[in-house]
Amino acid sequence: MNNISFEEKVKANAYALERIKSSDPYLVDVRTVEEVVPNFKKNMILTSGAPLPWEEYTGGQRNAILSGALFEGLAENLEDAESKITSGEITIAPCHDFGCIGSVTGIYTASMPVFVVEDRTNGNRAFCSPYEGAIEEKITYGLYTDNTRNNLLHLKEVVCNVIGIAVRESGGIALRPIIRRAINMGDELHSRNTAASLLFSRHLFPYLLEQYNTDPVAINQTLDYLNNDYNFLRLAMAACKVTSDTISNIKGCSIVTAMTFSCKEFAIRVSGLGDQWFRAPLPKGQVKLFEGYTDADVSWMGGESCITETMGLGGFVQAAAFTLQDYSGGTPELMIENNNKMYEITLDEHPEYKIPVFQFRGAPLGIDIHRIVESGITPVINMGVAHKDGGQIGAGVVSAPTICFEKATKAYNKVYIRSIANAP
Amino acid sequence: MNNISFEEKVKANAYALERIKSSDPYLVDVRTVEEVVPNFKKNMILTSGAPLPWEEYTGGQRNAILSGALFEGLAENLEDAESKITSGEITIAPCHDFGCIGSVTGIYTASMPVFVVEDRTNGNRAFCSPYEGAIEEKITYGLYTDNTRNNLLHLKEVVCNVIGIAVRESGGIALRPIIRRAINMGDELHSRNTAASLLFSRHLFPYLLEQYNTDPVAINQTLDYLNNDYNFLRLAMAACKVTSDTISNIKGCSIVTAMTFSCKEFAIRVSGLGDQWFRAPLPKGQVKLFEGYTDADVSWMGGESCITETMGLGGFVQAAAFTLQDYSGGTPELMIENNNKMYEITLDEHPEYKIPVFQFRGAPLGIDIHRIVESGITPVINMGVAHKDGGQIGAGVVSAPTICFEKATKAYNKVYIRSIANAP
Repeated sequence: MNNISFEEKVKANAYALERIKSSDPYLVDVRTVEEVVPNFKKNMILTSGAPLPWEEYTGGQRNAILSGALFEGLAENLEDAESKITSGEITIAPCHDFGCIGSVTGIYTASMPVFVVEDRTNGNRAFCSPYEGAIEEKITYGLYTDNTRNNLLHLKEVVCNVIGIAVRESGGIALRPIIRRAINMGDELHSRNTAASLLFSRHLFPYLLEQYNTDPVAINQTLDYLNNDYNFLRLAMAACKVTSDTISNIKGCSIVTAMTFSCKEFAIRVSGLGDQWFRAPLPKGQVKLFEGYTDADVSWMGGESCITETMGLGGFVQAAAFTLQDYSGGTPELMIENNNKMYEITLDEHPEYKIPVFQFRGAPLGIDIHRIVESGITPVINMGVAHKDGGQIGAGVVSAPTICFEKATKAYNKVYIRSIANAP
Repeated sequence: MNNISFEEKVKANAYALERIKSSDPYLVDVRTVEEVVPNFKKNMILTSGAPLPWEEYTGGQRNAILSGALFEGLAENLEDAESKITSGEITIAPCHDFGCIGSVTGIYTASMPVFVVEDRTNGNRAFCSPYEGAIEEKITYGLYTDNTRNNLLHLKEVVCNVIGIAVRESGGIALRPIIRRAINMGDELHSRNTAASLLFSRHLFPYLLEQYNTDPVAINQTLDYLNNDYNFLRLAMAACKVTSDTISNIKGCSIVTAMTFSCKEFAIRVSGLGDQWFRAPLPKGQVKLFEGYTDADVSWMGGESCITETMGLGGFVQAAAFTLQDYSGGTPELMIENNNKMYEITLDEHPEYKIPVFQFRGAPLGIDIHRIVESGITPVINMGVAHKDGGQIGAGVVSAPTICFEKATKAYNKVYIRSIANAP
């Protein structure tokens, strides 16, 4: 029914790669979920990962979903939230289906603010919530207290309001040049966003100055918020999501469009296979824990920031970010080796994102399920590590499990009947 | 008369290294030369390099000195300037003798603004002029037009005034943490100051906001000026100069305290030999020229930015700055090799300036004249390349000539009679 030839597959992938390479993400606005996310309904809570039955959400991710219900006023207390979720009065849905992309637990509710990123080449939009800032108790990492709530409100009412005005005033901020420069400055845009966050702040400065007289306190508070090394990650994620969505359903295309974690599973999507999820048990990472923690403290609570790896950043440009040794372990030699391997499972190189230590070779781009299955090499993912009771306790590197790529390959071969994977 | 034992030499060097490693440079003010530079007289013009007789200043450096006289109103025209210099009415002196440090031609006159950098551990001060900005015709590179003059006045009256207020308001800006972070972000603080310039701007920004209502136009102009990747070089130079000056005359110390270019010569100073200059002919560099230029266009017009190498930055941390391939040529392998060699001619490693690709090994620190003579390896210097008619036309890497280190070693052995260089 869907028979395609090997040439058609190559053509489909080439078309997809052109869309990825020409994608031009701009930050165009900061708004609330209900204002901008298409098809979102007020009783929804989005969360990271391929969807699970409610009883399979555990630990930090379960707590974050329940907390989302409280934050949004969808439930009066935890029991109420549990019962409304069970009854279907509150709906849980995966971020990826709504153009959103989840950091760790990845909670989105109606009134939460999101960065709005538009692909000015392809015209589509994606959304990501802002970094919660220096606060310890982050809903992102499965915690929720009065501090969490007040901080989220402050973010929305002050910081995102100011940044939103600045962004609209600027006419939109091109993210591709920031990412390109940041790689030249030692970022890989997943575990390290130090340079990108600074470059983003510099773009905002003139527009913060313009607003200064309207509300000096708000401007200073926004400046305080921006004084961190992490805020750009959310923009990198939105940029990668908006790019990835431009190839989300191309007939015959064997390129991976999403990799995502829930508290229970790792899962991927493949362009030519549309919205289908291919799942695998959680992999084991090589992690470096902050002082005082052990492996027994580690827990998975979801995460979709590996959209950066899916689109050629993060672990795929880790040889640009040797400083990460400090944060997530490893050695420069290992980083180079890991990074080099990614060329074996990808189909192309990014025309602008280039790795200095490789003499500006383009980032490996377009993860191909067939190359993974043939080589036995899977995508390497840089990641943060969560504590079982919430909070971040380290960082590290994980290799995606093989099984989901094998499942996807089987499905691909079934849909596109002729055994094109074995073609010359 | 000055006999010292080998142990005394080791002790002298250890003492010097402690002073270097504990040096804590802060930007504390921005003022005019006549306000802050000790012993500076109104009829003086400072310039880069070991001093030369007037007739030996040629090309861009000669033109820059004459231009300094015009800018300062010391002479009415070029002929007048020539005659007043010849008669001694205008005095020319080397930057290094006045706590100043010259970028390329390195011109300082009484009313020019300087960054004031104080070593908060050792208490001394050093000075560096600000980057001239995006303008093509820079006195730094031997050019002087109405544009040059107006730009210098704008720098002084607007930009340096605003930055000066900001710096005083801030209570001083610590430069060491900025340098440390910038190395982690791909700068080597000589040919590449991209991250450091950004980090410096971020430090200033809250104090620019505070001033906004006083003069919004000036603040916006200052912000425009700060929007470049080069301004921090001058602060790195002042930081290295202030550190180097803390060991400028330690009995028995064999560590290099200055390396400097004039239009005619390369020259060095050595701690235990005080103010004496040891000179050598100009070396030949490996350079990458901007498009459209050839070797025939290249000219030397002085330069003291290699104070960065003298204190363990620039070429001595080039393996932190692979992105420089783009700007000054070379390959990552060559950068690593060059950088590694510097450990063979130095006595210590910097406790905070660390090179990520070397697994955070400290920058090679304390250039020892005896190690250079024994190994035959000389300091590697990152540099900008000047056009014979003025302006920058490229960048590259140069190895310091051996002969000045040999001369210095002879002088050292003569002063400190026993042949301690041959001790075990």
